[in-house]
Amino acid sequence: MQLPFKTLEWVGDLPGHLRLLEQTLLPQEERYVDLDRLDEVVDAIYRLAVRGAPAIGCAAAYGVVVGLQDARDESADAIRARFAEVAERLIAARPTAVNLAWAVRRVAARLASERDTRSGEALVRAALDEAHAIAREDAEQCASMGRHGADLIERTGGRLLTHCNAGALATAGIGTALAPMYTAHERGLALEVYADETRPLLQGARITSWELDRAGIDVTLITDGMSASVIGSGRVDAVFVGSDRIARNGDVCNKIGTYAVALAAREHGVPFYVVAPLSTFDPDSASGAEIPIEEREADEVRAGRLGGVAPAGVKVYNPAFDVTPAALVTAIVTERGVLERPTLAGVEALLREAGRID
Amino acid sequence: MQLPFKTLEWVGDLPGHLRLLEQTLLPQEERYVDLDRLDEVVDAIYRLAVRGAPAIGCAAAYGVVVGLQDARDESADAIRARFAEVAERLIAARPTAVNLAWAVRRVAARLASERDTRSGEALVRAALDEAHAIAREDAEQCASMGRHGADLIERTGGRLLTHCNAGALATAGIGTALAPMYTAHERGLALEVYADETRPLLQGARITSWELDRAGIDVTLITDGMSASVIGSGRVDAVFVGSDRIARNGDVCNKIGTYAVALAAREHGVPFYVVAPLSTFDPDSASGAEIPIEEREADEVRAGRLGGVAPAGVKVYNPAFDVTPAALVTAIVTERGVLERPTLAGVEALLREAGRID
Repeated sequence: MQLPFKTLEWVGDLPGHLRLLEQTLLPQEERYVDLDRLDEVVDAIYRLAVRGAPAIGCAAAYGVVVGLQDARDESADAIRARFAEVAERLIAARPTAVNLAWAVRRVAARLASERDTRSGEALVRAALDEAHAIAREDAEQCASMGRHGADLIERTGGRLLTHCNAGALATAGIGTALAPMYTAHERGLALEVYADETRPLLQGARITSWELDRAGIDVTLITDGMSASVIGSGRVDAVFVGSDRIARNGDVCNKIGTYAVALAAREHGVPFYVVAPLSTFDPDSASGAEIPIEEREADEVRAGRLGGVAPAGVKVYNPAFDVTPAALVTAIVTERGVLERPTLAGVEALLREAGRID
Repeated sequence: MQLPFKTLEWVGDLPGHLRLLEQTLLPQEERYVDLDRLDEVVDAIYRLAVRGAPAIGCAAAYGVVVGLQDARDESADAIRARFAEVAERLIAARPTAVNLAWAVRRVAARLASERDTRSGEALVRAALDEAHAIAREDAEQCASMGRHGADLIERTGGRLLTHCNAGALATAGIGTALAPMYTAHERGLALEVYADETRPLLQGARITSWELDRAGIDVTLITDGMSASVIGSGRVDAVFVGSDRIARNGDVCNKIGTYAVALAAREHGVPFYVVAPLSTFDPDSASGAEIPIEEREADEVRAGRLGGVAPAGVKVYNPAFDVTPAALVTAIVTERGVLERPTLAGVEALLREAGRID
């Protein structure tokens, strides 16, 4: 589906620039920023002007090109020398974002493979080519998950619920959990989507409700505590969520609050679908218990964006993610198809087929 | 337990005044206001300076005295004539608050019973006497629920979780759901309480975390979506919540988000206790399905106290309450004791014993 907004894109050829939807201004304003200096790209990643693992990876890959293109008249060796510094600055923008480092390493591998290239211009063009490939593959994976997920929606009906934001704004394509919605919408299916606001950072209220509404999909915002009764009252045909990491046994780590939604879905016989590319699977985590859960600062809950709602000194527990046991997951939708009722054996077969494990 | 703050109290004799903890300033400031004019009491109730069904009832009963005391040198008939107007203005402050109307009617019945009283002063004193009785009975009910609930905590352990605010700040005593915590604290039991922030109006963040902390109880604030994983990770020995209405079959209507907590508690074998006085039971509601759920305005979720977090025009579903089926309730704690595993027969036996039904 062609969305009426674009999370990120490369504009022009060489020299060109990276155009980003400035997400810190959402939902109040849809503004695009054109970045043609490395420090601007680093700053945009740091400020969360672009967020979501796949989108950060794409932005970083294009960021390499931004950082190299001014030197394209120099020798290939000069470009190679410059690359190390550019890569370091990009990775330092968000050191824990694995997709960022992965994308930069992938561009590095491409440059390394061009060992006979003597022209700086040709080498920068190779980097741009690799960045385009990363973005294109991301968009293709989203499109594939969208098709597989939309097939599920055709069976379940189009009254859906989602938590947090695993949407187009997190990728270079149509998203992960929201991809089936965009594809189903394009197929003409009637959709009604409940979006959990997703405290503490309110990604559902700020981002998911904005992007679905902008794409013409009927969306209704609820607070996280309402999900269980919305599901219980028969208003939801299926739940679609994304994932930050999937363990080898099928346990799904996702934004805090996902587990409560999964419990309510099972209680009321509503399918609970996780949509995530194969890169989300972590064969080294035997189960969800082995996935480290990031704890974030107290003021995100106490105050933060919301401004002084709780006593300033009150203790806060603020885990960013939770784990939904595989037993609560109806299916995991990947770019390779639908893995029903994920189990250790099922996940391993999928990863083996994809060459991720031996 | 003697709390270090007082939700409301009558100061002096006649003339006296109603002293309220100004709850709209919480948690930033603990300020008391002295009200000696009827319009001040009406305004305080309207502005939610005092909130929570029992506390509103007590404030209204004292409000009658405030409205009558200036005329105490007049005849009893003059006082009776004035009462009708005072009652009407108080009830109009929050027309759907059943406890408010109930308390005013109770003072009316007392005045009616004093049919031989000729002195205005004596009649106003009778009204004050009745208001004191209402507040005292409320405090005694809270204390009784506190004792019964604390007995449960002695068995389960003191790592507790609560949702919304059913605390001292909602009553003239030590609260309902929080009463067992105050009593257990007084008995010297070690407590660690998780308080759900309770979106959209954040009563947990603003009020529950404040009052527990003020009373010296260890409290940790979490977002509503965190409850399930906090319970799932073994950090909670028991859940205590209040109720707005309990159906004849034991279904419990309470602040939206309660049902999700109950599902997580059952999943992990954690007792789920509802603490509510007998007056909360509604024998006319056969089950939770018959309890009307108030839907509130969209801006409470979209913006409200939090300020422009979602697209201004986005659709919102904002039910204020949900229903937890009796099957998920471990016990209901009332001022008369603990009703384990509530069923239609159990609730009816309790209400019959209390003379609430035939």
